[in-house]
Amino acid sequence: MKTCTYLGILGGLGPASTVYFCELLTSHTAATCDADHIDMLISSRATTPDRTAYILDKNSPDPLPVMLSEAHRLERAGVDLIVVPCNTAHYFYDGLAQGCQVPILNIIDETCAHLSRMGVQRFGLLATEGTIRAGAYERFCEPRGLCCVTPTKDEQAIITDIIFGQIKQNKPVDMDAFQKVVTSLRSLGCEKIVLGCTELSLLKKLGLDDELFVDSLDVLAYRTIVACGKTPVGFPSSFDREEVAR
Amino acid sequence: MKTCTYLGILGGLGPASTVYFCELLTSHTAATCDADHIDMLISSRATTPDRTAYILDKNSPDPLPVMLSEAHRLERAGVDLIVVPCNTAHYFYDGLAQGCQVPILNIIDETCAHLSRMGVQRFGLLATEGTIRAGAYERFCEPRGLCCVTPTKDEQAIITDIIFGQIKQNKPVDMDAFQKVVTSLRSLGCEKIVLGCTELSLLKKLGLDDELFVDSLDVLAYRTIVACGKTPVGFPSSFDREEVAR
Repeated sequence: MKTCTYLGILGGLGPASTVYFCELLTSHTAATCDADHIDMLISSRATTPDRTAYILDKNSPDPLPVMLSEAHRLERAGVDLIVVPCNTAHYFYDGLAQGCQVPILNIIDETCAHLSRMGVQRFGLLATEGTIRAGAYERFCEPRGLCCVTPTKDEQAIITDIIFGQIKQNKPVDMDAFQKVVTSLRSLGCEKIVLGCTELSLLKKLGLDDELFVDSLDVLAYRTIVACGKTPVGFPSSFDREEVAR
Repeated sequence: MKTCTYLGILGGLGPASTVYFCELLTSHTAATCDADHIDMLISSRATTPDRTAYILDKNSPDPLPVMLSEAHRLERAGVDLIVVPCNTAHYFYDGLAQGCQVPILNIIDETCAHLSRMGVQRFGLLATEGTIRAGAYERFCEPRGLCCVTPTKDEQAIITDIIFGQIKQNKPVDMDAFQKVVTSLRSLGCEKIVLGCTELSLLKKLGLDDELFVDSLDVLAYRTIVACGKTPVGFPSSFDREEVAR
């Protein structure tokens, strides 16, 4: 892939994880002054119709037209790579990619490739109901022989509440309930737990175990920094293997 | 002022403070779902020529043409308000404002207005040498009868090193040296200390005293949230007086 000189971020899905993604980019790019950082244009269209709501009920407003219109805005501005820091929005990836000239990094494909390079065989997926129900990860797992384990219906209800009822509302997170779901996935033989929703990535600020959790947003940040020709610094040790893939 | 429905952020000056400003906007806007947040377009042009370098030496590359071109990009996208989360860049405010149709909030004007509403008479200013040498705050202090006290030459060298040699390089900050400058300004009768550089705003994450420090970036975030017709939440208690001004 050609080195990206101007990055487009299709964001606001949700707003807090877009900001956190940008924070990952700035804090993990080797820099001695402002100009060492990535030039970027960030569309944070918070009012994009809810992705999960549409995936679960096609009578809900379709977010794709808004996402496409924002992608075209980035394209017109001259970006040469687009990233979408939201797993659920990748349900619309094919529609976006077909409607755009500019390449779009796929957070789910990149995360599965990362797991594969780590030698993981079986992982637990924490994500929105939209991502789970759409089988968004399975599609990229099968060709790699990866096994993706999803929570039970009751456990998923806990994760859904953490994402929509707690994190997106700036409320305290029920970490005991979260850990209960994690323990259950671990008991099913999952070697790693994937944070497959960029709202869940925000939980890392509360100090999740770097060895157990693989954050899809970390993977996207790493691949983005590399695609922009910059040097990634300070990522968890599991990223040491990514050096080979660069 | 008409309520802003689409916000433009002229950022990257530097990249980390732009991200922190966006974090302030998302964490301080009352919201129960993504769509309650502000729709915005953020230009983070990290390679904009260094503002302080140009202010101190007019033979250095002029950042205004790049800033104007990014402001026009935001304008073409349809934003109806522009904010620039960088004090030093406000040296170029008049040039920007004259070249744009869209109103631009002035972080320095807003900060001085905030100090004035708080009943402050004399404050210490921590900022880049560019902001200090340009007298950027004095211009908005005089009409309000505010007295702005700046560090000595040696103290300013400490602040300059903290901004350019430490914060912008993601290095640990010498907080003892920082506090020495603060103590000196306090001994000159300053009631408040203004963080008049958005890189210094990042120090708040290390736990600065809310009662003593007034952060220009907090003021800009507050005024922006209000200008966008949203409800600001969780600001320091000094912002209670802002309620009256809304």
